[in-house]
Amino acid sequence: MSIRDFTREDIEAVFKASDLMLELYDREKYSRLLEGKILALLFFEPSTRTRISFEVAMKRLGGAVIGFAEPYMSSVQKGETLIDTVRVLDGYADVLVIRHPNEGAARLAAEYAQHPVINAGSGRQEHPTQALLDLYTIYKEKGAIDGLCVGVMGDLRYARTVNSLLLALANFKVDVHLVSPVPFLDPRPALLEEIRNKVAVQLHRRLQEVLPQLDVLYITRVQKERFPDPSEYERVRGTYFVNRDTLKEAKDDLLILHPLPRVDELSIDVDTLPGAAYFRQAHYGVIVRMALLALVLGALQ
Amino acid sequence: MSIRDFTREDIEAVFKASDLMLELYDREKYSRLLEGKILALLFFEPSTRTRISFEVAMKRLGGAVIGFAEPYMSSVQKGETLIDTVRVLDGYADVLVIRHPNEGAARLAAEYAQHPVINAGSGRQEHPTQALLDLYTIYKEKGAIDGLCVGVMGDLRYARTVNSLLLALANFKVDVHLVSPVPFLDPRPALLEEIRNKVAVQLHRRLQEVLPQLDVLYITRVQKERFPDPSEYERVRGTYFVNRDTLKEAKDDLLILHPLPRVDELSIDVDTLPGAAYFRQAHYGVIVRMALLALVLGALQ
Amino acid sequence: MSIRDFTREDIEAVFKASDLMLELYDREKYSRLLEGKILALLFFEPSTRTRISFEVAMKRLGGAVIGFAEPYMSSVQKGETLIDTVRVLDGYADVLVIRHPNEGAARLAAEYAQHPVINAGSGRQEHPTQALLDLYTIYKEKGAIDGLCVGVMGDLRYARTVNSLLLALANFKVDVHLVSPVPFLDPRPALLEEIRNKVAVQLHRRLQEVLPQLDVLYITRVQKERFPDPSEYERVRGTYFVNRDTLKEAKDDLLILHPLPRVDELSIDVDTLPGAAYFRQAHYGVIVRMALLALVLGALQ
Repeated sequence: MSIRDFTREDIEAVFKASDLMLELYDREKYSRLLEGKILALLFFEPSTRTRISFEVAMKRLGGAVIGFAEPYMSSVQKGETLIDTVRVLDGYADVLVIRHPNEGAARLAAEYAQHPVINAGSGRQEHPTQALLDLYTIYKEKGAIDGLCVGVMGDLRYARTVNSLLLALANFKVDVHLVSPVPFLDPRPALLEEIRNKVAVQLHRRLQEVLPQLDVLYITRVQKERFPDPSEYERVRGTYFVNRDTLKEAKDDLLILHPLPRVDELSIDVDTLPGAAYFRQAHYGVIVRMALLALVLGALQ
Repeated sequence: MSIRDFTREDIEAVFKASDLMLELYDREKYSRLLEGKILALLFFEPSTRTRISFEVAMKRLGGAVIGFAEPYMSSVQKGETLIDTVRVLDGYADVLVIRHPNEGAARLAAEYAQHPVINAGSGRQEHPTQALLDLYTIYKEKGAIDGLCVGVMGDLRYARTVNSLLLALANFKVDVHLVSPVPFLDPRPALLEEIRNKVAVQLHRRLQEVLPQLDVLYITRVQKERFPDPSEYERVRGTYFVNRDTLKEAKDDLLILHPLPRVDELSIDVDTLPGAAYFRQAHYGVIVRMALLALVLGALQ
Repeated sequence: MSIRDFTREDIEAVFKASDLMLELYDREKYSRLLEGKILALLFFEPSTRTRISFEVAMKRLGGAVIGFAEPYMSSVQKGETLIDTVRVLDGYADVLVIRHPNEGAARLAAEYAQHPVINAGSGRQEHPTQALLDLYTIYKEKGAIDGLCVGVMGDLRYARTVNSLLLALANFKVDVHLVSPVPFLDPRPALLEEIRNKVAVQLHRRLQEVLPQLDVLYITRVQKERFPDPSEYERVRGTYFVNRDTLKEAKDDLLILHPLPRVDELSIDVDTLPGAAYFRQAHYGVIVRMALLALVLGALQ
């Protein structure tokens, strides 16, 4: 439901299962681990990346996928409640993956479903599987998470990926540097307070203030669809931008992550740097979701 | 094509195949019965429930699904006729499942296809697989259909589920009580006449007149999209409504069915009654469609 | 990428693989040749026929399909570039199938992907898999391609199927007769010049001028969506039309092909002629795409 449901031990269990998936993936390109199982997608918000990533994960393990991915799908248009939709699909499938614009929608679904429910993004704050794949990418690329200096730049208020990532990082011994280009994108005070109890956090306006110390730089798109007011979006867009020149002062092995899709905040001239790992990060998204599906369906016991 | 194509013996053969599916489903959660077979969906009308139910049924049996589910799919937009679309998909798949707004569309498709065609709803009158799953649910929940007193309430004119259900019930020794809240929703006289030759049918305006005698109460949504005139829909909506209070006088083991989605005609406070079987009914929909697919593809011989 | 990438030997290799597929298809209706492999569809243009044909081909061979088929899919709407979309899906899948309105889009994709990329139609000129299935249909129906007199009628300028077919035919010893009902639909001079170096080509205004000599008649729809100016489309539509009467002077064994969907250029009264092979042609489309997928994924070595 939430990255808050995961302790450090839980996250490490996901890493271990992901390592196993990576091995399966590379050795056989396939497995029959979830053969005969059905995953139901309940995507009440448009999403290509996350939806397809879950689909690939299920199909790589031999399972099948059903469900819907249009915001205005038929039964909902006919006035069906979320709970009824969940109960019907729960009667069809072995695991539900839900994405919904409202906070708490995934948790509500889990209360009514008899099968496992995975939150694929709800409201502005929760995107736990993204946080797990972000951490797993850092772990694979850097060998460990403890001891790293991690910068997170961009929309720290509306991007649910950032919110979940910060809560996930707070389980590890890291220094966190937040780069918020304008006060409007500063993280919510409640979130800051919550993670400050666990890790050192500093807030910056400009990337250059902290770039030389960073081991990891996580960049997010300013997501127009998260802004309550479109004119505020226009004002912010373009106030930050990363290219090779911006990164002159960075460590040679700086790991650069981005949840994708990118728009204009991350130049393609960065793509050829060895630390530019965002496409590998997308690939690890499949691996981590394979692990999560195998775990919740009890296939790894 | 039509529930009229089914004799009582045919329906019982579907029940027998469904019982087998239920056993397979519970024991192995999967089968390879239809491995390598392809089902083509030709959904010219929006539908989530029926479409997904067929998809699950095919995938649970190891088959694959292709086709389209958008009313304005590309080739049709380009001006292709139904017959051409059917002939092309017939060259791709092993079984066709068609849903179409026009009466007779499924029958026309079956004339041109070399593979089996299943009608997943056509026009205002036919929805045979829904009728079969409704009957199967009654059979599983009550042990038998003969001897029951069955109430059907709601839109008796435009709901194709009701039309097909009444014709299906007419194969059994049942008393049928129709509750039509307004004359506008009364069943078509031709249908009434047809089933009256086979079963006892009474028409009521209010549920309370007949509730104490009922063994089964089947409730339908007033489907806005079936009304030729939207203002008539607004007038009717809300003239009937079932909640726990409405059901005070009912038998303790009253079986309550609904094809779903529900809007405001059936309160969620009914959901916890032991006889509230509409989510089990949705699940049985998969079972019955597994049986139908296995039967038409000759996999049970 | 382009039918220009194929020599005669390459085309014959595809035929040989297709013959094998046809055998597999008929004998077992299925194979596990591509089990565990994933095909990603990147369809930036609406297409039902080609998309479903690739889906069937992959699923018949035991593989799975992911991707998108809506022109306005979510990540693209968010401003993602083609290259980023390709790189992400390349990290998910084993083979990419792309359709795009722009010339060169498929080739660009292939530069960035590490897995094989198949062009399922790009711009106005390239539709190589259609050309291969057209040739394969001629080969299966006529036994050979060399020595045939082939007429191609309809939109010779904007239909990418025609463009690719003519380039494919130029690898064989055929006489080509082009029937362009109005000068506006004449083939591009550069294309004419290119194929005239290899095969004899004649241009006609009326089908009757050449009909008695033809062994094959390939008819295309005038595709409204290819015209830069809709009023020009209206002017041309209906200037040509083929029915049984039109074909009175044709050879008895004239092979009639059409890429489908048809609108009003080909009458249904032609369907019952023994040489009316357009629905078999659609079926061969699956066979040829099975062969191509098996070949690019190295499953036939």
